[in-house]
Amino acid sequence: MKTSFGSDNHSGVHPLVLKALADANDGYELSYGEDRYTDRARDVFRSLFGETAFPFFVFNGTGANVLCLQALTRPYHAIICARTAHICQDECGAPERFTGCKVITIDTPDGKLHPEYVKPLLHGFGFQHHSQPRVISISQTTEMGTVYTPSEIQALARLAHDHDMYLHMDGSRLANALAYLDLSPESITAHAGVDALSFGGTKNGMLMGETVVLFRPEFAQDFLYIRKQSMQLFSKSRFIAAQYLAYLENGLWLENARHANRMAQYLAAKTRDIPGVTITQKVESNAVFAIIPKTSYEKISKKHFFYVWDETTGEVRWMCSFNTSESHIDAFVNDLKTTLL
Amino acid sequence: MKTSFGSDNHSGVHPLVLKALADANDGYELSYGEDRYTDRARDVFRSLFGETAFPFFVFNGTGANVLCLQALTRPYHAIICARTAHICQDECGAPERFTGCKVITIDTPDGKLHPEYVKPLLHGFGFQHHSQPRVISISQTTEMGTVYTPSEIQALARLAHDHDMYLHMDGSRLANALAYLDLSPESITAHAGVDALSFGGTKNGMLMGETVVLFRPEFAQDFLYIRKQSMQLFSKSRFIAAQYLAYLENGLWLENARHANRMAQYLAAKTRDIPGVTITQKVESNAVFAIIPKTSYEKISKKHFFYVWDETTGEVRWMCSFNTSESHIDAFVNDLKTTLL
Amino acid sequence: MKTSFGSDNHSGVHPLVLKALADANDGYELSYGEDRYTDRARDVFRSLFGETAFPFFVFNGTGANVLCLQALTRPYHAIICARTAHICQDECGAPERFTGCKVITIDTPDGKLHPEYVKPLLHGFGFQHHSQPRVISISQTTEMGTVYTPSEIQALARLAHDHDMYLHMDGSRLANALAYLDLSPESITAHAGVDALSFGGTKNGMLMGETVVLFRPEFAQDFLYIRKQSMQLFSKSRFIAAQYLAYLENGLWLENARHANRMAQYLAAKTRDIPGVTITQKVESNAVFAIIPKTSYEKISKKHFFYVWDETTGEVRWMCSFNTSESHIDAFVNDLKTTLL
Amino acid sequence: MKTSFGSDNHSGVHPLVLKALADANDGYELSYGEDRYTDRARDVFRSLFGETAFPFFVFNGTGANVLCLQALTRPYHAIICARTAHICQDECGAPERFTGCKVITIDTPDGKLHPEYVKPLLHGFGFQHHSQPRVISISQTTEMGTVYTPSEIQALARLAHDHDMYLHMDGSRLANALAYLDLSPESITAHAGVDALSFGGTKNGMLMGETVVLFRPEFAQDFLYIRKQSMQLFSKSRFIAAQYLAYLENGLWLENARHANRMAQYLAAKTRDIPGVTITQKVESNAVFAIIPKTSYEKISKKHFFYVWDETTGEVRWMCSFNTSESHIDAFVNDLKTTLL
Repeated sequence: MKTSFGSDNHSGVHPLVLKALADANDGYELSYGEDRYTDRARDVFRSLFGETAFPFFVFNGTGANVLCLQALTRPYHAIICARTAHICQDECGAPERFTGCKVITIDTPDGKLHPEYVKPLLHGFGFQHHSQPRVISISQTTEMGTVYTPSEIQALARLAHDHDMYLHMDGSRLANALAYLDLSPESITAHAGVDALSFGGTKNGMLMGETVVLFRPEFAQDFLYIRKQSMQLFSKSRFIAAQYLAYLENGLWLENARHANRMAQYLAAKTRDIPGVTITQKVESNAVFAIIPKTSYEKISKKHFFYVWDETTGEVRWMCSFNTSESHIDAFVNDLKTTLL
Repeated sequence: MKTSFGSDNHSGVHPLVLKALADANDGYELSYGEDRYTDRARDVFRSLFGETAFPFFVFNGTGANVLCLQALTRPYHAIICARTAHICQDECGAPERFTGCKVITIDTPDGKLHPEYVKPLLHGFGFQHHSQPRVISISQTTEMGTVYTPSEIQALARLAHDHDMYLHMDGSRLANALAYLDLSPESITAHAGVDALSFGGTKNGMLMGETVVLFRPEFAQDFLYIRKQSMQLFSKSRFIAAQYLAYLENGLWLENARHANRMAQYLAAKTRDIPGVTITQKVESNAVFAIIPKTSYEKISKKHFFYVWDETTGEVRWMCSFNTSESHIDAFVNDLKTTLL
Repeated sequence: MKTSFGSDNHSGVHPLVLKALADANDGYELSYGEDRYTDRARDVFRSLFGETAFPFFVFNGTGANVLCLQALTRPYHAIICARTAHICQDECGAPERFTGCKVITIDTPDGKLHPEYVKPLLHGFGFQHHSQPRVISISQTTEMGTVYTPSEIQALARLAHDHDMYLHMDGSRLANALAYLDLSPESITAHAGVDALSFGGTKNGMLMGETVVLFRPEFAQDFLYIRKQSMQLFSKSRFIAAQYLAYLENGLWLENARHANRMAQYLAAKTRDIPGVTITQKVESNAVFAIIPKTSYEKISKKHFFYVWDETTGEVRWMCSFNTSESHIDAFVNDLKTTLL
Repeated sequence: MKTSFGSDNHSGVHPLVLKALADANDGYELSYGEDRYTDRARDVFRSLFGETAFPFFVFNGTGANVLCLQALTRPYHAIICARTAHICQDECGAPERFTGCKVITIDTPDGKLHPEYVKPLLHGFGFQHHSQPRVISISQTTEMGTVYTPSEIQALARLAHDHDMYLHMDGSRLANALAYLDLSPESITAHAGVDALSFGGTKNGMLMGETVVLFRPEFAQDFLYIRKQSMQLFSKSRFIAAQYLAYLENGLWLENARHANRMAQYLAAKTRDIPGVTITQKVESNAVFAIIPKTSYEKISKKHFFYVWDETTGEVRWMCSFNTSESHIDAFVNDLKTTLL
């Protein structure tokens, strides 16, 4: 495939990350997280997310989300999220299966929860028949490409904490959110009241690797067992940690994210005024959502790869990534225009 | 760490595998197993294990084992294995948690099950209070470094099938077993009656990647959902498949395994006659088990890394891997001798 | 408590059922469903629900529902129901926890599903990221007191079967639905395409006891183990079976249900025209839903017990049971009128 | 069946318990444990087991055991018990399935654990690959009819607590143990260090009903949700509570147990010296274990019902219950003697 706007995981690995793998392939190392790379990578996480951050490396995003939720819940709890949330739509029911919890969804226009959406669901506390609300889970960026501001996150954290609940953030694209907000990692996580974070790497230039970041020691205490039992402990752990070092230490992660975001802005700018194209969501990260005519879709999809997001409306999603280029976009936009003539 | 006899996953990645990762890092690919590398790698598996083999790539060995067992069982079933089995000792209860099944263990001298050990447990069929025996799970090589012959496997498969049960093989070191037996992969799996195989890669020179190989279409049918829900579906799937291509296509896997086995033979030969050292298991693969005096262990373990296997007897395990060298071993044996003077 | 309109399980046990318990308390019987009463009671079920019915007695309604759903699903499936469904609102997440499935809810005005509500959710088949739709679950009567007609059930069964899915019916108040419809049990279950039925007893005059009725032998095959493992196998099983014999053999169940339904009609007739009272649902079984002023609720609830159904609208639920009497209702209505003066 | 030595649950209900059911069947009561009978019954439990006892009524013994274990564990824990334990042999894997824990069994001559048996299993604490030992579970009386002394229980509790573990007691026949020991309920539970108790009723004259008694407030805190989600919350709860009032308030439970124990002594005395019969266990409660010749078994089992305990040795189990009589036993012994001539 020459190019794809299908997903940011259709891209490969950033060359610096690949180089880090090769560099780490030297001699013997302890495994299962006891290697020296892991020690260093954990330090880097604490420097970014604060001293209260307990990072644990895992294989993939579904793993990171489900393990965060396991740490925060018992099976009689409920988890509240947007209907578009990855934990609801894209994990084949893993959260229900591996936490035992009920997942309650909220319809939203843009993938973002707000306290007023959540409040009506915060009832039945102490009522034995009712799954006890325990976690509010948000995605930053959302699956619709939108971004929560720090005060929006704080408001949800406050709501959660006022009800003895916790705030989970699915940050598989946290880098893109930070690039958009131009703020520190701490400011929208630990300082904003996030209790557990799924921190992504794979979608933004790593080969593989996500991180569960827990912000409370009581959740971190037994987390090693949760990770191992949940089949998310990597034996040759140095090869996740070394990637993270390359990814985080010199700002590569934010550079990649800034680039992807810029490409989405570029793509949106080039398509916004094309007759027949309607951009449907604010472009705040690396995704552009648009409605295009069905006939146009049928033609363009033969030359360029991307997904239909909503069959009923004809809404499509165009994802940019760290290695999307302006020339990719130009070619795509030209072809798109042709289909709309 | 300069050298380690602690585990075959203390080694890094074979250079050809690392090169394959770099070569696959070209342009865009579909994700989640729909890429072209995965297609090719699946073909290679079928060429090795026969046309009835359904291969599915997963992240790690615990994942491969638990997913095989999920495919073969419902929660009211029981799984029978040796007490030394990885699924019993080293997976933090993942099989119980994610299959719901009872795991019943058998004490063995050498990690190998035999029909006469298993038969006394094959009762209570149809009795509603009793977990219904469903799977016999064996490790090839065993965790004690021993190897099942084809006829031994066949006998267990026959016993299983005669009772409407299935045979699972944990083949995280299958390459080492094949190198020892000098037989085809098919001969000790599909042809010997194995119903599901966990096929390893990580311990023998890959960066990461194991394979669930199912030998019955009825188990393969819904397995995609089991893998996804169980958090074992890799997004950038080309990077497991490309490794397997490098690993399998030109016999690298067997070459690596042969080397590791040879090193274990070399190590055993060099230590067998040292006064104070007792080799405790047959050396049929890449592990050497030995009892050494406690005082000796305390000295040698300051210079060379390996694990105590059994605190009560002082038995230790020395693992060789694809990049263990004779000079490593010579240095180790010299140091060991010194501690025994 | 002198009277209660709170729930039909605030009532006690019908005298004939209690007598049956005493009569069964004679000598020794095998346990765990192997007694002679169970044999006879199973025959009665087959005479009512047809020869394809496989009945299994369990303790309670949540147990019956969860065990039906376990029989029909694997963990990567999804279960679709009305948001008001007992399996969604009143079982503390037991269906998610013990099936592993995603439960997807539909908002309805009257607790009833219709094919056009369900169809938009029937997508993603074969897509590995998506919980595979497997069960449509309806309640007969619904939690809103409404009743499905046979053709409505058939339409949902057809929709389910056309998609390789199954229809589950939560019939904890099936007797009330049958009393309303004046039809045979078979006509709205086996003949209408129901695949699994939770059949109630407790709410309609039994002390305790519900029944899982499976209409396909493939689901019944291993169900004994599901029941035992799910902690729903009663040791002194004769004491459920004997109750069912008294309840079913001479039509007591329908008599009780007809009475309860009549009382609901009587209550609705007496309150429908009271200024300030709005009946909110069709009265088709033994429940009356109404909106009354908050001040009225505060006064009347000191003398009569019933539940607020919806805090936001002030909707309340009045349940009638097999031993509700006209004089209870007259007293209640008088007191209600007083509060509205 | 005229008589049975098969199980104490082959007996019916004690007349006073049945009368209590009828007496409680008066008017309306709140359900789900909020009724007045439940309040009183909980008080009775506290008067017997001390003020630190938190009693919760459930349906059956498997339910009581599994719910106790759920309260004490997280899924990465291990539960240690005798191989003969009900939780291991007779619950179709429910403990594994509903706690997620590994169940580790110990072979014992008489069903009793002792610290020296358990200690070798108390390792791997803090090792992430290893299910963390968390609960020692004992049965009082054991499934072999033997009884722990208070000091034996204390020793196991101390061992557990010294390792941050808990002691669970399966007391489905606790009454028989107390009758044997002639001690207070507190002395062998709360005062002996038991953390959670499954307290039986069904096997000793109740129709149905067991109790989870938790001795630490932190386990009781969320237990209502565990019970409801685990399908063990009875709607018409007064009908368990009323049974317990009749059973406990005037000592009926101990009277029944004393009688059953006496009958076992009587049976043992009458059979001990019969040539060909070997009593295999100490008779400390209501069970007699014996080896009899196979030919004898074949004849006697046509007239009297009891179970073979061990096919390989020919060991059988004769259970006495609250309504076993000397004349039953005399008839049985006579017939047994005839088969041995």
